[in-house]
Amino acid sequence: MDLKFTDGGVTSPKGFISSGVSCGIKNNDSKDLALIMSTSLCNSAGVYTRNKVKGAPLLVTRKHLKNKTAQAVIANSGNANTCTGKVGIEDAEKMCSFVAKASNIGEEDVLVASTGIIGVKLDIDSIENSIPSLVKKLNKDGYKDASRAIMTTDTVPKTLAVEFKIQGKPAVIGVMAKGSGMIHPNMGTMLSFITTDVNISGKLLEKALKESVRISYNRISVDGDTSTNDMVLIMANGLSGNDIIEKEDENYKIFLEALKKLNIEIAKMIAKDGEGATKLIECRVLNVPSEKDGEIFGKSVICSNLVKTAFFGCSANWGRILDAVGYSGADFDIDKLQVSLESSKGDILVFKNGEPVEFSADEASDILSEDEVSIILNFNLGNYNVCCWGCDLTYGYVKINGSYMS
Amino acid sequence: MDLKFTDGGVTSPKGFISSGVSCGIKNNDSKDLALIMSTSLCNSAGVYTRNKVKGAPLLVTRKHLKNKTAQAVIANSGNANTCTGKVGIEDAEKMCSFVAKASNIGEEDVLVASTGIIGVKLDIDSIENSIPSLVKKLNKDGYKDASRAIMTTDTVPKTLAVEFKIQGKPAVIGVMAKGSGMIHPNMGTMLSFITTDVNISGKLLEKALKESVRISYNRISVDGDTSTNDMVLIMANGLSGNDIIEKEDENYKIFLEALKKLNIEIAKMIAKDGEGATKLIECRVLNVPSEKDGEIFGKSVICSNLVKTAFFGCSANWGRILDAVGYSGADFDIDKLQVSLESSKGDILVFKNGEPVEFSADEASDILSEDEVSIILNFNLGNYNVCCWGCDLTYGYVKINGSYMS
Repeated sequence: MDLKFTDGGVTSPKGFISSGVSCGIKNNDSKDLALIMSTSLCNSAGVYTRNKVKGAPLLVTRKHLKNKTAQAVIANSGNANTCTGKVGIEDAEKMCSFVAKASNIGEEDVLVASTGIIGVKLDIDSIENSIPSLVKKLNKDGYKDASRAIMTTDTVPKTLAVEFKIQGKPAVIGVMAKGSGMIHPNMGTMLSFITTDVNISGKLLEKALKESVRISYNRISVDGDTSTNDMVLIMANGLSGNDIIEKEDENYKIFLEALKKLNIEIAKMIAKDGEGATKLIECRVLNVPSEKDGEIFGKSVICSNLVKTAFFGCSANWGRILDAVGYSGADFDIDKLQVSLESSKGDILVFKNGEPVEFSADEASDILSEDEVSIILNFNLGNYNVCCWGCDLTYGYVKINGSYMS
Repeated sequence: MDLKFTDGGVTSPKGFISSGVSCGIKNNDSKDLALIMSTSLCNSAGVYTRNKVKGAPLLVTRKHLKNKTAQAVIANSGNANTCTGKVGIEDAEKMCSFVAKASNIGEEDVLVASTGIIGVKLDIDSIENSIPSLVKKLNKDGYKDASRAIMTTDTVPKTLAVEFKIQGKPAVIGVMAKGSGMIHPNMGTMLSFITTDVNISGKLLEKALKESVRISYNRISVDGDTSTNDMVLIMANGLSGNDIIEKEDENYKIFLEALKKLNIEIAKMIAKDGEGATKLIECRVLNVPSEKDGEIFGKSVICSNLVKTAFFGCSANWGRILDAVGYSGADFDIDKLQVSLESSKGDILVFKNGEPVEFSADEASDILSEDEVSIILNFNLGNYNVCCWGCDLTYGYVKINGSYMS
C-alpha cells in the first residue's frame, strides 16, 4: 500500500482550516485555545475515557455526536473543566455556542474538549472574548498554532498527516494530539483530533476509529493514570471525492490501514514526550496465544516504575522485566520465554531457557542509552504479536508533578 | 482487649533465638544473612506472592511447609535467587540443609527466603562458610542483627512485638520484615517473619495469617510492582503454655486481633520506608458497599504516580485523587463523595456535592508537609471502611532505581 507521512496536520485534508490563540487561561501568555473547522459538515465519531469521572466537555461532545456529524472542534488547555459541577456543563455548552454563532453553524455540530487542572472553574469570559480572533485566524497554516494551543506539559506539538489514494483519488488524514501526563488511555486517550477528506459513512468511520485506537493510543502509557478527559475525535468531510465507503471493502481496508499507521505514529510521539521522559520504550511481545495476552504483558512491562527507572539509568536490569511479566496476570512458560533488548546501536539476548544469558553490562548500557529502545519478549507460545509503548521515569517527572497545582 | 506493643521482635516470644551476619553477598560488608530458630518444633504457615515468576527459595519453602511445621528460617539479602534455573533451586535447598546439619534439625523444618537482584546466581560457598558463625551467634538479642541482615534499600530495620494474654497466660507475637522497593504485595508481601509462643493448631494459624495479611501487607504499595519473592511466614512454638487453640473461639479471636494489629503496624512501617519516600500516605475509604470496593478505591489512589508526586510536593491537587478513584473500576456516585486531607496539623474538606470546596492552598500545603498524611474518601454508599497505605514518589526513588543493577 502506497502511503506517505508528511509534516502537515489537521488542515492537510481538503476543506479543513484551523487556528490557535492565547485567551489567558494559562498565565504565561502561551496559546491555550484551538479551533478546527471544516468548510462542510462531516461524518464524525469519537472514543472517550473509561474513567468514571468524566470531564464536562466530554459529556457535551458525546451528546453533540449522537447524530454522528460535526463541523468544528474547540479545545482549550490549562483547565480540564472537570469536577466543576453544573457550571462546568454549562461552560462546555457555551464554548460550542460561541463557535456556532461566530461561524454560523449548528451548535450541535461543534465538539468541545479541555485539558489541564481538574476541579477549577473555567474562565468562560476570557474564552468568549477570544472567539472573534480565533475564528478570524482560521487558515490552512493554523494547524501549527492549534497544535500548540492544546499542549499542557508537552514539550513538542504533535501533528502529522498521511497521504494515500482511494479509487485513484488523493486522500489525506491529518491529526493533532497532546499527551504528556495522566496518560494511560483506556478506549480513548488524551486529546487527539483527526481530520480526513475521505468520503466514508459515519458507521464505518466509527468502526475504523475504534479499531485504530485499540492498537495505538490504548497501547501507550506514561504514568498509568487514565485521565478524566481522554478523547479521540475524527471528522471526515468527503472532499477527496471518492465514492462513499459504506462496506468493509478494499477501500475501507486502505483507509483503516492509513488511519492505524497514523495513530500509531502519533501515539508513539505522545509516549516519547511523556512528562520528564528522556526516551521511548517499546515493548514488542512476540508469539503469544492472543492479542489480549500480548497487551497484558506489554502494558505490565511499560507501566512498571522499576522498569521505567532502570531504563532511565540505562540499566539492563531485566529481572524487573520478568517481574512485571510475572505479575501481569497472563499465563506463560518461563522456560520458553526469550528476552532481548534492542536499539539502533544493536541488540542483546539476556534471558533464555529459564536461565540468565551472560552479557556485557557496558554493551547493554550503551544500547539502552539511545532515545528509542525496545524490549523484545518472545514467548514462543502462539502466533500473535503486539506492540506497546511507554517512556522512562525520571527526576523530571517528579519535578513536574511535585510542584504545586501543576 | 489488653494489648501492648514493645520494641522487641522475632525473639520476643519464648523459645525463639536469632542472628545475623555478613557473608559477603553484599559488597559493602553489611549484614546479609539472617537466621531465626525455635528451640522446639513449631506449627507454621506461609503466604506467598501471586507473581507467576516465583523465586527458588519460595518454591523450596512452600515444599518444606507442606507438613505445616518448621523450626528455623534462613534468609539472605543482596540476591533474590530468582530466574536462576535449576541451580537456583539446588542452592535454596542447600541453604536449608546447611542450617539443618549445623543445628541438628530436619532439613524439611528449615524455611528459606531471599531478596535482592533477580537473575544472578547465588554465591552459595560464601553462605556455607558463614553458617557456623551464624548458628553460633543465635541469641535473644539477635533479632537486631537479623532484621538488619534482611534489609535491601530499606533505611531502617523493621521489627516489633506485641504482648497480650490468652487464658490468663502471657503471650507474645514478634515480627521482622523488609520492604522498600518492588512493594505491591498480592497475598504475601516482601519478607516478613512472624514468631509466637501461642499454642495454636497449624490449620488455625494459617487461617489467622491469611486473614491478617489481607488487611495489612496486601493493603500497602510502594511502587505497584509485585515482587517474585514476597513471603510472610509464621511459626508458633506453643511455649506460652495456653491450651491449644483448635476452634475459632474467644482465644482465637484474641490471637487474630493481636496478629492483625501487629501486621498492620509493620506494613505501615514498610510503606513509610518505601524507596526514596519522605512520607506515609494513608487512604481511608469510608462507607463503601463492600471491603472489595474499598480496596479497589484505596489501592488505586495510593498507587497513582500523580497522587504520589503531588504529595511529595505537599500539593493538595485533589483532582488527581478523583481521577484515580474514577479509573479504579469500582462504582460510586460522585455527588455523594466527600474528599478530605488530614494530618496531625489539621484537616480540610476539598470536594463535596460534586463540586470543589474552596480552601486555603497554604493551609493545605502545611497539612501535607507532615511525614504521615491521610486522604479521607467518604463515599456515603455503605457500611464498610477500608484503609490502605502507600508513600510519595520522589527524586530519591528515581535515584535508587535508576542506578545500574540496584
